[in-house]
Amino acid sequence: MRALVLNGPNLNLLGQRETSVYGTTTYESLVEQCRSWGSQLQLLVECRQSNHEGQLIDWLHEAQDFAFVVLNAGAYTHTSVALRDAVAALSVPVFEVHLSNVFAREEFRHHSFLSPVCRGVICGLGPLGYRLALQAGQALASH
Amino acid sequence: MRALVLNGPNLNLLGQRETSVYGTTTYESLVEQCRSWGSQLQLLVECRQSNHEGQLIDWLHEAQDFAFVVLNAGAYTHTSVALRDAVAALSVPVFEVHLSNVFAREEFRHHSFLSPVCRGVICGLGPLGYRLALQAGQALASH
Amino acid sequence: MRALVLNGPNLNLLGQRETSVYGTTTYESLVEQCRSWGSQLQLLVECRQSNHEGQLIDWLHEAQDFAFVVLNAGAYTHTSVALRDAVAALSVPVFEVHLSNVFAREEFRHHSFLSPVCRGVICGLGPLGYRLALQAGQALASH
Amino acid sequence: MRALVLNGPNLNLLGQRETSVYGTTTYESLVEQCRSWGSQLQLLVECRQSNHEGQLIDWLHEAQDFAFVVLNAGAYTHTSVALRDAVAALSVPVFEVHLSNVFAREEFRHHSFLSPVCRGVICGLGPLGYRLALQAGQALASH
Amino acid sequence: MRALVLNGPNLNLLGQRETSVYGTTTYESLVEQCRSWGSQLQLLVECRQSNHEGQLIDWLHEAQDFAFVVLNAGAYTHTSVALRDAVAALSVPVFEVHLSNVFAREEFRHHSFLSPVCRGVICGLGPLGYRLALQAGQALASH
Amino acid sequence: MRALVLNGPNLNLLGQRETSVYGTTTYESLVEQCRSWGSQLQLLVECRQSNHEGQLIDWLHEAQDFAFVVLNAGAYTHTSVALRDAVAALSVPVFEVHLSNVFAREEFRHHSFLSPVCRGVICGLGPLGYRLALQAGQALASH
Amino acid sequence: MRALVLNGPNLNLLGQRETSVYGTTTYESLVEQCRSWGSQLQLLVECRQSNHEGQLIDWLHEAQDFAFVVLNAGAYTHTSVALRDAVAALSVPVFEVHLSNVFAREEFRHHSFLSPVCRGVICGLGPLGYRLALQAGQALASH
Amino acid sequence: MRALVLNGPNLNLLGQRETSVYGTTTYESLVEQCRSWGSQLQLLVECRQSNHEGQLIDWLHEAQDFAFVVLNAGAYTHTSVALRDAVAALSVPVFEVHLSNVFAREEFRHHSFLSPVCRGVICGLGPLGYRLALQAGQALASH
Amino acid sequence: MRALVLNGPNLNLLGQRETSVYGTTTYESLVEQCRSWGSQLQLLVECRQSNHEGQLIDWLHEAQDFAFVVLNAGAYTHTSVALRDAVAALSVPVFEVHLSNVFAREEFRHHSFLSPVCRGVICGLGPLGYRLALQAGQALASH
Amino acid sequence: MRALVLNGPNLNLLGQRETSVYGTTTYESLVEQCRSWGSQLQLLVECRQSNHEGQLIDWLHEAQDFAFVVLNAGAYTHTSVALRDAVAALSVPVFEVHLSNVFAREEFRHHSFLSPVCRGVICGLGPLGYRLALQAGQALASH
Amino acid sequence: MRALVLNGPNLNLLGQRETSVYGTTTYESLVEQCRSWGSQLQLLVECRQSNHEGQLIDWLHEAQDFAFVVLNAGAYTHTSVALRDAVAALSVPVFEVHLSNVFAREEFRHHSFLSPVCRGVICGLGPLGYRLALQAGQALASH
Amino acid sequence: MRALVLNGPNLNLLGQRETSVYGTTTYESLVEQCRSWGSQLQLLVECRQSNHEGQLIDWLHEAQDFAFVVLNAGAYTHTSVALRDAVAALSVPVFEVHLSNVFAREEFRHHSFLSPVCRGVICGLGPLGYRLALQAGQALASH
Repeated sequence: MRALVLNGPNLNLLGQRETSVYGTTTYESLVEQCRSWGSQLQLLVECRQSNHEGQLIDWLHEAQDFAFVVLNAGAYTHTSVALRDAVAALSVPVFEVHLSNVFAREEFRHHSFLSPVCRGVICGLGPLGYRLALQAGQALASH
Repeated sequence: MRALVLNGPNLNLLGQRETSVYGTTTYESLVEQCRSWGSQLQLLVECRQSNHEGQLIDWLHEAQDFAFVVLNAGAYTHTSVALRDAVAALSVPVFEVHLSNVFAREEFRHHSFLSPVCRGVICGLGPLGYRLALQAGQALASH
Repeated sequence: MRALVLNGPNLNLLGQRETSVYGTTTYESLVEQCRSWGSQLQLLVECRQSNHEGQLIDWLHEAQDFAFVVLNAGAYTHTSVALRDAVAALSVPVFEVHLSNVFAREEFRHHSFLSPVCRGVICGLGPLGYRLALQAGQALASH
Repeated sequence: MRALVLNGPNLNLLGQRETSVYGTTTYESLVEQCRSWGSQLQLLVECRQSNHEGQLIDWLHEAQDFAFVVLNAGAYTHTSVALRDAVAALSVPVFEVHLSNVFAREEFRHHSFLSPVCRGVICGLGPLGYRLALQAGQALASH
Repeated sequence: MRALVLNGPNLNLLGQRETSVYGTTTYESLVEQCRSWGSQLQLLVECRQSNHEGQLIDWLHEAQDFAFVVLNAGAYTHTSVALRDAVAALSVPVFEVHLSNVFAREEFRHHSFLSPVCRGVICGLGPLGYRLALQAGQALASH
Repeated sequence: MRALVLNGPNLNLLGQRETSVYGTTTYESLVEQCRSWGSQLQLLVECRQSNHEGQLIDWLHEAQDFAFVVLNAGAYTHTSVALRDAVAALSVPVFEVHLSNVFAREEFRHHSFLSPVCRGVICGLGPLGYRLALQAGQALASH
Repeated sequence: MRALVLNGPNLNLLGQRETSVYGTTTYESLVEQCRSWGSQLQLLVECRQSNHEGQLIDWLHEAQDFAFVVLNAGAYTHTSVALRDAVAALSVPVFEVHLSNVFAREEFRHHSFLSPVCRGVICGLGPLGYRLALQAGQALASH
Repeated sequence: MRALVLNGPNLNLLGQRETSVYGTTTYESLVEQCRSWGSQLQLLVECRQSNHEGQLIDWLHEAQDFAFVVLNAGAYTHTSVALRDAVAALSVPVFEVHLSNVFAREEFRHHSFLSPVCRGVICGLGPLGYRLALQAGQALASH
Repeated sequence: MRALVLNGPNLNLLGQRETSVYGTTTYESLVEQCRSWGSQLQLLVECRQSNHEGQLIDWLHEAQDFAFVVLNAGAYTHTSVALRDAVAALSVPVFEVHLSNVFAREEFRHHSFLSPVCRGVICGLGPLGYRLALQAGQALASH
Repeated sequence: MRALVLNGPNLNLLGQRETSVYGTTTYESLVEQCRSWGSQLQLLVECRQSNHEGQLIDWLHEAQDFAFVVLNAGAYTHTSVALRDAVAALSVPVFEVHLSNVFAREEFRHHSFLSPVCRGVICGLGPLGYRLALQAGQALASH
Repeated sequence: MRALVLNGPNLNLLGQRETSVYGTTTYESLVEQCRSWGSQLQLLVECRQSNHEGQLIDWLHEAQDFAFVVLNAGAYTHTSVALRDAVAALSVPVFEVHLSNVFAREEFRHHSFLSPVCRGVICGLGPLGYRLALQAGQALASH
Repeated sequence: MRALVLNGPNLNLLGQRETSVYGTTTYESLVEQCRSWGSQLQLLVECRQSNHEGQLIDWLHEAQDFAFVVLNAGAYTHTSVALRDAVAALSVPVFEVHLSNVFAREEFRHHSFLSPVCRGVICGLGPLGYRLALQAGQALASH
């Protein structure tokens, strides 16, 4: 069973920027953790990151070949109808993840164009959120 | 380590009402599952349910004696500043859970007074959400 | 055929407070009238009143045993998503009643969380509204 | 005692269009029912229908000669200040009726310019709503 | 020099309805006054009234033959884009008049679709407003 | 195959008023063009215009006898729920047309009550829009 | 009979600034005209102008000694609750005047804090508006 | 002269939670202070606290027997129309008190459903606010 | 210990205007009362009033020399960011007072730019509010 | 005469995703149809598709070499000011096309940043819309 | 070449109040700096400050004699239409300056009535902003 | 000391499109000017332009190696939370520049997601704005 973990804009800076908000885990070690959690769950986890909205859409179109997607679209969460459409076009379930508790931050981060078309949302739990999303994917995605 | 699972209004009807939205698990079996997941996580899980906002507040005041709280406040999520204050007054972390994907439902369910003062939010994953919240609590609550 | 008439907060004061808005009929005589109208309609009418939102929800859960419900939720009409969910969870029809013409009063009384999940709404007709609601219930509820 | 029943735009199509919303009773049989209910209530009921806002206003000006009016202004309910003014100018009471539960439909149907100047509102009860309105008129209109 | 005075819905009831708002002058005597003021100003004044939006539009199309228009569109002031377009299509100036001070009444009467395309607005001065509008027309309309 | 072309308020002035917005084609020549385009498309085109909302509704009720309707409701587009209901009640498709690009004009012209219940919308293309709508009708209406 | 004409901020620049909006009459000649119109109407007209909100309030407090006030508060019309209170505190009538048609300008000029507490409003008629306001004052103010 | 001091949700935690917002006085010592201030003012002060909206309403219904009420409804201030109705139904004056300056906190705390029906509001002065409210009650309540 | 009492626009009219709203105490006797209450509290009270926003700001700049300020900014409360900044710039506490219950009046009086930067707010208690504010100042201002 | 047809995000999935909304025509056959319709209209049609907003902007900059553009910007329609600026910078006309009736879908699809700077809009007509847009382009673009 | 630098309310307190927001430069040294920068730029710089809106308007009327104006209207930026009108009435360019980054502060500071009628805006750069504005004035004002 | 000048979408068209809004300077000569101004200020200026949001984010991530950034994000200013996050993640200061006065244009250009996280904003001054931003950067960036 293969899982695709997609990370959006600025997540490549993880552990370097605003660590009080996003924590000290670097992007590289997040990727490492996801792979390792995947092994525990019998999942082959593939991680990708891009600052380009169009690239994320392209990858979502390829996601048809995975059992499910874990998606942290970063700031595009709040502004991208195009990503929403790409998620809606996908027949495999997508699990939305946010490292920080977006609801405790600026008002423009409270609305997500993606949530209504995702299977579920996990936010505020830091890197652990990815682990829980992988678990959810494994449990809920149809094989 | 003890965990308190609080369920709000109408959740006693689980499995009996609007099963297309909330699933077929009954409240009793949800309680059973929570306890069983707790055992696996070395947690003593206590589950309570009430349709009374004041009762939920009273219980949150008692939650000081638990390591963390898993809270599904049901419809009070969207209307209760009093519950928010009770959560904010608590020094142990609270994890907000919703069975259904509230963001895919009526607009008045998109706003939560509780999210900004909770540690994290998990929604749309059915009963599994409780399990993930228990895991998060075990991993993140200070012992 | 049994009908449940539920009255919400402050309706116990009927006939004592703001009589220019709510009229001079007391709560006790309203109950009497409902029972008497019930007899005429071959209905066994049970009337309950509470100032507690949670109590009203508990009673709506019990309403499954009646043919229909006449509900004047008073001020909770405008603020309670929890009551709405309780009505939506019910398979018997609910008829919303207001003594005063809420649309001719403060703007916050113009919106009802309950109306969209009730079968119909009758407002502004004083105690007579209960009678019409009982008639509607008798005519429209499936036996 | 004479009662005037006014029906607004598109109600002439009753029973022919969107029957899942408006039911299968035709306009003609609604008129028949109103007259018959009227007889039972000792009321001489006159029914008129027009798709023209101006015509409805003209008729409301003539309504001074009736004991009361039952008004289903259809879509003009939501857009016509002119009808509201015509109702407000009338010294006999007006009872607003809607066949469907307008609060369970599109948001623009939730607001009525007429309700604040009507004596009461009955909605969602189908043709029965007219009957209840006639009863209310008979009971509440000053003779 | 000819002037057209157009009165909209419910103004035929002038002097009969809500006299505390609109005064006790009847529509007939308003017409008389307008004609008499016209004589003093060397104007031939023609007065028309209709409750039909379409009729008012038809008359505005004919207004091309007058030096100017005095328009009290009543409630259509607040709802009719069609009247606005008819005014905008007219090359002679239109003077908007209201008997009552619309800004001291309900909020929905504060906005006029017509004002931005009229030459000027006079409101709150009762029948005198028509006289002032006729004066303005005589002074400002190109002959 | 018969097509009904309905034009709303002020369109009779076409070519005479605000020609920078609506162009110099007169209403008569628009009618001529529609008929001629109809011939080319094997359509019998009937054109009607009214400034009366009620008249347009009446005609939409008769449209059941045509294969489709091309509707330019002019200003009523933005204010008439009654026309929307008349369109929704119709089983033949309606194509909404606007001569000018309404989205490049005042904000109140950006919203159409009709669009959601029409089959499609064509705007900003002048008289050519009618031709394209006739083509669309011929291609998409069921015969 | 004495009348007070108050002019607010920037009106001292009349005839010098934005003449396409405000016309070419200078403030001095406006004052001259007001006095002259006053003579014709048997009114002793006193004109004052200030750019200071506080000064205008002080003058309104003195207005008790006049039969009525003609008030063009300029930009303070749209922002000053303090001026509104000063007008409301006055027992003699106040007539609001604007040289330009404020409703045809920026949206923030469409709302007046003063209109609801003034006797009437005249706008868009240039200096003539002052004359009409003086006439209205003479006719309507109690002597 | 008897005074009733009602405290709403979470106020039982006073001195224990968020002391930077609410201060270090405990609920018990607040009650003590109120009683002691009462003695100085010749008032018999009775203090009650509940987290239940319905309980607060019940107590307000009993308040008829006191000379006045000091009400700190906590979070229900911002959400409860039912409490507002209970206050409005009361013929003795109610004085609204808040320990913290609610206007310097989250926006949803800026609106009070209670203020318009209370006699006065005192906020931001800590426990001293209760003392001032008792003084106000003694001075303004009719004996 | 010295206290500065500042009164804003129109308060010089106290006792003369709208006495049903503001009471019959004149400004002069209010000043007298404040001084007398001051003596009882060992405070030297200085009272100033101005209709000029700028003057009030100038005085607030001088307030540094007082132990605290009691501020009734009248209508400027709702519109003046400049006064808010002057209060925020002050290191001594400011107590906001309103004679009437502003929350029971027009909606534009419900918002205060000053409250968030004042120490506390007292409203609706008439002249007594000044006394309570002086007491609060004496108790809470640092000496 | 050359025409450029630009398709935005997710349109490459045409015929594969949400076929109830977008129909069963694949992107490849749409391209084929456009070319074929082009031949009939003596147009050389070039079709491009990208999920990247920046790419679409780059292409619009190149569009200066075409007679006109047919633009279906997909979800970027609703969110991209940058695309709007690119359209506005272009001297050749742009025709906006949508396959589905966007006005019958979610509210966030009702607003287009592009419409006000396009020559016209065609929506809801499926692939036929492209044909009509090509016709419009041929007829209206200056050669 | 003469330049006028106008400073609005509370700027006289510069360096004394909220130094974390406005910096430690005093108003006197700001004036000194402006004069000195002026010399470097061959500009005769005149600085004025007032807390009175009316005074600032008076000064803007005199600004006609300067080559340009640098305007920091402080809090009046956000509330004064009268200042906006004074700027718009001026034929010499006005450069808006703010010491702090107003967009990083409270929402009510994000809107400026002045910006649309100023030549340009410089904000967040502290006293340096005045220097840049003087440079801009020298470069862009017509001599 | 190195400075990075980033230009967003459509700025490559500078001098070619809408020259009444953006001026006649071409992008190439703007780059030339920036370099030349840089030399005067002892700055090594590097200029980059892209129509791709993701590219601009990538470059902002590289900006850590520069002393400061001058950013004209064009239309992305108003829509991109992702760019805002990239700016916020940067420890060197960013100066926001706009050629035109965005506040004098369409309302959707009045809001900038970037301003709150930039050090300062300069707008409306054409190419000169870049020069002033470079000066500001040199003066305020820590070396």
